[in-house]
Amino acid sequence: MAGSDATSPRRPDALTLVERMRAGDRLALARLITHVENRTPAVPAIMKAVHGAGRDTFVLGITGPPGAGKSTVVDRLTALLRERGHTVGIVAVDPSSPFTGGAVLGDRIRMQGHALDTGVFIRSMATRGAFGGLARATGNAIKLLAAFGFQWVLIETVGVGQTELDIMKLADTTVVVLVPESGDAIQTMKAGLMEAADVFVVNKADRAGAPALMAELKFAAHLAYTSPGAPRDIDWEVPVLATEAQAGTGITELFDAIAQHRAALTTTGALQERRRARRRDELRALLVDEFMARVDERLRAGELATTFQRVADDEMDPYSAAQAVLAVLSLRPS
Amino acid sequence: MAGSDATSPRRPDALTLVERMRAGDRLALARLITHVENRTPAVPAIMKAVHGAGRDTFVLGITGPPGAGKSTVVDRLTALLRERGHTVGIVAVDPSSPFTGGAVLGDRIRMQGHALDTGVFIRSMATRGAFGGLARATGNAIKLLAAFGFQWVLIETVGVGQTELDIMKLADTTVVVLVPESGDAIQTMKAGLMEAADVFVVNKADRAGAPALMAELKFAAHLAYTSPGAPRDIDWEVPVLATEAQAGTGITELFDAIAQHRAALTTTGALQERRRARRRDELRALLVDEFMARVDERLRAGELATTFQRVADDEMDPYSAAQAVLAVLSLRPS
Repeated sequence: MAGSDATSPRRPDALTLVERMRAGDRLALARLITHVENRTPAVPAIMKAVHGAGRDTFVLGITGPPGAGKSTVVDRLTALLRERGHTVGIVAVDPSSPFTGGAVLGDRIRMQGHALDTGVFIRSMATRGAFGGLARATGNAIKLLAAFGFQWVLIETVGVGQTELDIMKLADTTVVVLVPESGDAIQTMKAGLMEAADVFVVNKADRAGAPALMAELKFAAHLAYTSPGAPRDIDWEVPVLATEAQAGTGITELFDAIAQHRAALTTTGALQERRRARRRDELRALLVDEFMARVDERLRAGELATTFQRVADDEMDPYSAAQAVLAVLSLRPS
Repeated sequence: MAGSDATSPRRPDALTLVERMRAGDRLALARLITHVENRTPAVPAIMKAVHGAGRDTFVLGITGPPGAGKSTVVDRLTALLRERGHTVGIVAVDPSSPFTGGAVLGDRIRMQGHALDTGVFIRSMATRGAFGGLARATGNAIKLLAAFGFQWVLIETVGVGQTELDIMKLADTTVVVLVPESGDAIQTMKAGLMEAADVFVVNKADRAGAPALMAELKFAAHLAYTSPGAPRDIDWEVPVLATEAQAGTGITELFDAIAQHRAALTTTGALQERRRARRRDELRALLVDEFMARVDERLRAGELATTFQRVADDEMDPYSAAQAVLAVLSLRPS
């Protein structure tokens, strides 16, 4: 696979798509995102071709448990960004659960108000295969939307599991949307949510329990801000905002908080440093994938089959086997 | 690190601990688990030394959202196993969240009824560093408890996030404990929970909402059982049981369900096949760690620093960089 790029018949197609996309062809953009979603062999060539474009795009992540009204928040925020003249690319990452499929479809339909606006592009991406793979595909989709020229890219995820939190690492600013009812889900993922959130939104803030949730979040945010382990690259205590997204209430304040976080990141140089760290992490993840692809090549060729077999049969311990495999791959300590 | 094993002063100590542990020394067992928890350089030598021991140990996983009463279920199940003459090693995996620390400590105190019983060994392990690392450490702790001779190893996790689900992959049978109140957490992780569960328990079954939750879970379990994607190595529709663990109600029925699942795994040969797959996965995960350790060695030695720097500076795309790094490591396609 890795060596077939140069001769693949898909490559010229993909590069033609890149040219068309850069000329403003939305269908070409959609097709390129399909490439990264399906992880076709053309992906490395596509990502090499778009490299360096869209550096000024700001990436905003929106996450939170199902039913929190994230899509409505995204919808209202998109309308506000458009009013202010910004273009917006949206990636909605949907877990491929048969249990949530319906709700997600409903969410997408709600966004149709932007369907005729060429300043907005909306794309859903599904969970396929490995979790790490979805984060990679989402990261590549963000780069394509940035290369196309969208000034803002919004990533929306459904749920607050580890996958969603991993995807939020791709965002410059992350908004966590909660509702008074999301109590248990918050307890389960509280540490992860606190780490991910740059802005907390309590949506459906007219409901009972909203003031208590806001007080709890403010306390937790203040605790995190004053803890010795808090990130110190920017001076930022996570604000807790109330919205009623359906009615449009609180969206301007949310945008202001996002803009303040963006300004804090930019003026301190933290944005560039965080993006640098993100690119290093991306390289590490790619290296792992490439390494395992080569292990699998050798396995298919029969070279490492005996070692894997002996481990499977419990005749060899995995630590000894790992050393043996690395020796076969001529990968010795430096 | 990788090459220092043979000369490390820790190695004889660790191997002495293994000898003592095998002679029934519980303190040596505790110290060996500390080695795997802290990922000391002695871990490979320890795991090589215990390899092959404890193959007949059965590994039972217990997971579910905080507050579901998992520890009480574990406590009652342990008492039942002891009554029937089985020995039990217990690993409680606690996320290192400052928010849940207190509850977990409380859970541990509740288990003190078994503190004087030499047929029971209880150990908490905390989340440290990478998620994959915790699953590895837990897997190694299970092997140590098995090598010591415990007939059953119970793994209890707090929460229903991806980490917990990854850890449940180490179990032969997984029990998911829920309560009527855990609605939101279930929605969030439903697909993951359905995949992980071999037995569902609705605890605190006297509370309002229990019959509705049981009906919902039974419907979901039946849907999963009849779906084309269901595992077919055993004929198993996930049962949904009601318990009131505090009062001891339903624990015998829970044990019977676990025993039935174990029998289904054993008679079909699925237990051995699943364990074989698990060992292969363990080797793959170790290979990734060893590979990245070697990349980091080279990075520290300055060899790959320029490539990582250029990626961080956005001067080079990560796909080209990954190829360049693998070439430096002499790791070419076969």
